[in-house]
Amino acid sequence: MQSDETAVLAANEAFYNAFNQKDSQLMDSLWATGPRVTCIHPGWNVLQGREAVLESWHNILDNPNQPRIVTGGATASLFDTIAVVTCRELVAGSPLVATNVFILEEGAWKLLHHHSGAVFAT
Amino acid sequence: MQSDETAVLAANEAFYNAFNQKDSQLMDSLWATGPRVTCIHPGWNVLQGREAVLESWHNILDNPNQPRIVTGGATASLFDTIAVVTCRELVAGSPLVATNVFILEEGAWKLLHHHSGAVFAT
Repeated sequence: MQSDETAVLAANEAFYNAFNQKDSQLMDSLWATGPRVTCIHPGWNVLQGREAVLESWHNILDNPNQPRIVTGGATASLFDTIAVVTCRELVAGSPLVATNVFILEEGAWKLLHHHSGAVFAT
Repeated sequence: MQSDETAVLAANEAFYNAFNQKDSQLMDSLWATGPRVTCIHPGWNVLQGREAVLESWHNILDNPNQPRIVTGGATASLFDTIAVVTCRELVAGSPLVATNVFILEEGAWKLLHHHSGAVFAT
């Protein structure tokens, strides 16, 4: 049986796969269904609520010039029904770092909060 | 009696007060004692573990040129023993946005993860 940590890291990977496949429907299915989802895209203010968050993703995934994301170094800390993942992101050669918080909803880990920002220091 | 949400928002405020008072000892006391604490300063890569995270804060608070932080718009989502807070930060006129994740440790909300980054879009 898959460990919880493996399941969380798989959910994190699924998120980036949906991004790279530009699959809005898949992206929608990976986010928590509650109203408390939040998202901070690089350089943006916080988006509150599932509707605003998913709309932002649709616009990003619909953008034909949106480059792919390469990710690495994901680590997960699990706390019962919440997991905090940090990982590196590489977009068009630019390094970023992300916080992805997941919640266990009906046995599946769903995105509750995403925060990504550029790395300038090394 | 203080609600859990009020207690989390007070812990979030205490974090920024410790910052503005440049009080490293107080800052240390506000972070979780477990090994799983993580921190992403603006433009930095992720720091893993209480020792690395607190050392980074000591260096920041010891810097005589470090400006104060003004914060606003904090909202908290609580999930049993974990809380996810987002809030705006203003440092020397520059807008940032932060994710602060807290964990309930022996009845007190302690910082588990901090991620702050600049806001470029408005």
